[in-house]
Amino acid sequence: MSKFAVLGHGVVGSGTVELFNMNRELIHQRQGIDLELGYILDIRDFPGLPYSDKFTKDINDILNDDEVTVVAEVMGGVHPAYDFVLACLNKGKSVCTSNKELVAKKGAELLRAAKEHNCNFMFEASTGGAIPVLRPMHTCLAGNEITGIAGILNGTTNFILTKMKEDGMGFAEALKLAQDNGYAEKDPTADIEGHDACRKICILSSLAFGRHIYPDWVYCEGISAITEEDTAYAEASGYAIKLIGSVERVGDKILPMVAPRFVPDSCELSSVSDVFNAIMVYGNGFDQVMFYGKGAGKLPTASAVLGDVIDCAKKSGTDMSQYWEDSADNSFIADYAAHPVRKYIRTTGSDKSAIEAKFGKVDYLSRPDAPADELAFITPALPDGDIDRISAELGTVKSSIRVYEA
Amino acid sequence: MSKFAVLGHGVVGSGTVELFNMNRELIHQRQGIDLELGYILDIRDFPGLPYSDKFTKDINDILNDDEVTVVAEVMGGVHPAYDFVLACLNKGKSVCTSNKELVAKKGAELLRAAKEHNCNFMFEASTGGAIPVLRPMHTCLAGNEITGIAGILNGTTNFILTKMKEDGMGFAEALKLAQDNGYAEKDPTADIEGHDACRKICILSSLAFGRHIYPDWVYCEGISAITEEDTAYAEASGYAIKLIGSVERVGDKILPMVAPRFVPDSCELSSVSDVFNAIMVYGNGFDQVMFYGKGAGKLPTASAVLGDVIDCAKKSGTDMSQYWEDSADNSFIADYAAHPVRKYIRTTGSDKSAIEAKFGKVDYLSRPDAPADELAFITPALPDGDIDRISAELGTVKSSIRVYEA
Repeated sequence: MSKFAVLGHGVVGSGTVELFNMNRELIHQRQGIDLELGYILDIRDFPGLPYSDKFTKDINDILNDDEVTVVAEVMGGVHPAYDFVLACLNKGKSVCTSNKELVAKKGAELLRAAKEHNCNFMFEASTGGAIPVLRPMHTCLAGNEITGIAGILNGTTNFILTKMKEDGMGFAEALKLAQDNGYAEKDPTADIEGHDACRKICILSSLAFGRHIYPDWVYCEGISAITEEDTAYAEASGYAIKLIGSVERVGDKILPMVAPRFVPDSCELSSVSDVFNAIMVYGNGFDQVMFYGKGAGKLPTASAVLGDVIDCAKKSGTDMSQYWEDSADNSFIADYAAHPVRKYIRTTGSDKSAIEAKFGKVDYLSRPDAPADELAFITPALPDGDIDRISAELGTVKSSIRVYEA
Repeated sequence: MSKFAVLGHGVVGSGTVELFNMNRELIHQRQGIDLELGYILDIRDFPGLPYSDKFTKDINDILNDDEVTVVAEVMGGVHPAYDFVLACLNKGKSVCTSNKELVAKKGAELLRAAKEHNCNFMFEASTGGAIPVLRPMHTCLAGNEITGIAGILNGTTNFILTKMKEDGMGFAEALKLAQDNGYAEKDPTADIEGHDACRKICILSSLAFGRHIYPDWVYCEGISAITEEDTAYAEASGYAIKLIGSVERVGDKILPMVAPRFVPDSCELSSVSDVFNAIMVYGNGFDQVMFYGKGAGKLPTASAVLGDVIDCAKKSGTDMSQYWEDSADNSFIADYAAHPVRKYIRTTGSDKSAIEAKFGKVDYLSRPDAPADELAFITPALPDGDIDRISAELGTVKSSIRVYEA
């Protein structure tokens, strides 16, 4: 019998309890582990549930119960989640979390605490929701050098971009639909400006490259500037616009980034639609693998939390390899402005010679019903910052979106 | 220091050695394990390699070296692979294999031998090549009841079907191109008749449902009867034809099957093209996840083998949960003929009333340049065997392909 506790009875917390109760017998039978839910921590009261007797408002009930060996932290936010998680780890209790903000900001410290106290800090649910990606990357792909990662890491923005592509909606209309469907918050900033995706690419990059990457160090651009015209050019030219969290090796540095991208139809990421997430991983043996599924939602996120809980309950001691070191500074992060990219650019005017004088040979794109005073093209590969500088000099640039190169 | 051996220096075996030598330092650093290649077993001589001193022709050299704790079996075929693997397991050495025939035919027995001798029998490379799917399904998705699996499990047939769809090729022409590219064998039977995919769906199903499923028990249909006309109807109607290995729950039984399917464009499997594989897994918490990547090839397959080797070298003792029991009989396999399906059917003639008298209301499909004496339609959901019986009665049916229902 292994006893676990759940911190927080919100959407993910109640989903974790629900999924556990639904599948408890099967877990026992197929995983060989007899799990028992010991406590649920929440400041609110939940009378009338079949498991109302499990609730406590005092973290010490959990900390002081030696039978509790695994704790699921599904409260969200850094405080008090951080304090509770650290206290659990310091007591030698493994912690499984869905809290991407906590992992992105405090991951290295919490991993070290787990190592020091011979327990585990796991966070499959923090990135890609239900999608198995962190553990498979660390175990099944362990024989490879990971050379890059690119993912659709935020379901809200992918829903918006899908509606813009498939139904020709403008950004504002698609955002409103996302809000009406409960996919976007009333204040959608964290999603649409890429902050949520940024935390997730930080977690993926930290695990892949072994050093903590803080969100503040990552160039992050959202999707709020994307227009129907841009979507139409992409659609007509064999691309889909996707918000991509990516990281690649650049010499002996790495370059993490969140930005909308023109993803060619030949790349499997281009067909990932609606609220689905997908993460493409590149390596020197396996070449490329992609993990696809629901990046959010009550039971999907609970599935990832519960998978971690089961794994922790089966382990004795620390898996010291799923680990990264803290980083004193960001000197290992490459300068995005110096990195060559191709960009889709949309301008007003019809003077191709002015464009070609600045950019050299470009590939012009067309779309149905384009006005005569509009030009769109894809630049040759030039340093990212140079393209911005040239665009400013031109003075006619309305949109600028990086092309995704697999 | 952990010592491992490789049985067989063919494509996958030499790839495993190559990938290990390429990434050895990184594996040490990131996985905390100092692996050493002890032996390579092959009846042939390989002089002049940097590691020619590692070769042996005698399995006893490996069996009797107590420092060898993990063995990669990459010979293929059942004999002598089976005897060697069993001997290694009986000596307490973990075995990792890419050999799908061995796992599909002898998996339950070899898993039991591993359990009895406190070591592991692992086979991530046997299904989906480089794609992490077996371990993620068993670990990350452990909190769920798996309700179904559907996969594109054979790259050769997917390449052929892609060429038929995208370039309008006939089956024979696409097969020849696959052979010219080295994707299909001179005798392509195992691929095109679905036998290879069948072994893989057996392995996936056995792991998901905990009982050994032998390939002989599985209804298996290949792609050699698919015509350009069928491809054109699919393309014009929002489907892609894919060879799908699937399993689903039917009451208290399961129904594994290999058959070509009309996969709707809305399903992510429909966009998996060329030699890529992908496996969609369904469960009661996570809903659906898909794993995508290269299902074959030297380094991709080696990646999966090496991932297993690293995992075994890190473990002490058996992971008793990634396991299934042998099956005395196939009474838990549902009768496919009684299971309701919808089918695409192509007939000669233009008599809709005859069709509707037999099938009831059907959905007619169209394609460009269809002759006047051709009808194609999708039936309502009827027992699989009934559709075949009705088709035989009609006497005009040229093609019959099941529709994939997510």
